[in-house]
Amino acid sequence: MRSPGCPLCESAGGELVATGAHFRLIRADEAGFPAFYRLVWGDHVAEFSDLAADERQHCMEAVAAAERLVREHLSPDKVNLAALGNQVPHLHWHLIARFRWDSHFPSPVWAAAQRPAPADKLAALQARLPALDQALRQRLAF
Amino acid sequence: MRSPGCPLCESAGGELVATGAHFRLIRADEAGFPAFYRLVWGDHVAEFSDLAADERQHCMEAVAAAERLVREHLSPDKVNLAALGNQVPHLHWHLIARFRWDSHFPSPVWAAAQRPAPADKLAALQARLPALDQALRQRLAF
Repeated sequence: MRSPGCPLCESAGGELVATGAHFRLIRADEAGFPAFYRLVWGDHVAEFSDLAADERQHCMEAVAAAERLVREHLSPDKVNLAALGNQVPHLHWHLIARFRWDSHFPSPVWAAAQRPAPADKLAALQARLPALDQALRQRLAF
Repeated sequence: MRSPGCPLCESAGGELVATGAHFRLIRADEAGFPAFYRLVWGDHVAEFSDLAADERQHCMEAVAAAERLVREHLSPDKVNLAALGNQVPHLHWHLIARFRWDSHFPSPVWAAAQRPAPADKLAALQARLPALDQALRQRLAF
């Protein structure tokens, strides 16, 4: 079910990392956060509670599987999950690996920056993404 | 399982609205957002993927049940869900009713305010909370 004019119905919304039967995982292009993923539900629904119970379970098991791989590959200090959708009311879960050294920690990524993120840390993180993405692609094909 | 020094292990963390077997629902005291709830997992775990699959399902069915009641009682323009925990790494889900007139919409509540929230709208929202809280208390006793 698609909604005309919805950017997440009409385009991938970022770099496509993995495709499941009912969702896709993309990497967002958010400055300073290389490991910022979004799990986008396939159908156009606005709210998490618009899903049926089995769909919610499917969705959150995908989120949890992605989170586990992010933790295994990147050892973040914290993972942040969020379904906001104020701007694009098409269900998508932000999944963001957070580090004490990142530009906003411990604030949410949407708050004001606290410091510049060190370029060497960002580069080291970026270098780990291809292996993580491959693991996500294999694991999330359900 | 409790962790010494964790504020969500050692206190309710807000006004207690509902108590389930494995979680509690509190209302946070966040200026400008009367309908800002937190579903706090009972055990001290940092990440959503630290839960077992059946615990994740239990947790998210509670979140979805709360979300449905918030939608029924308040007709928000959007519901925001988030598990961040950078400051307090004890699993809790923020559940926030958002309105086009609120101080930050469409930005996340953690971003910069866009405008003052109208006092009459805040008061009208506040007036609906006792009935919502009662419904939440009944529905979330699982």
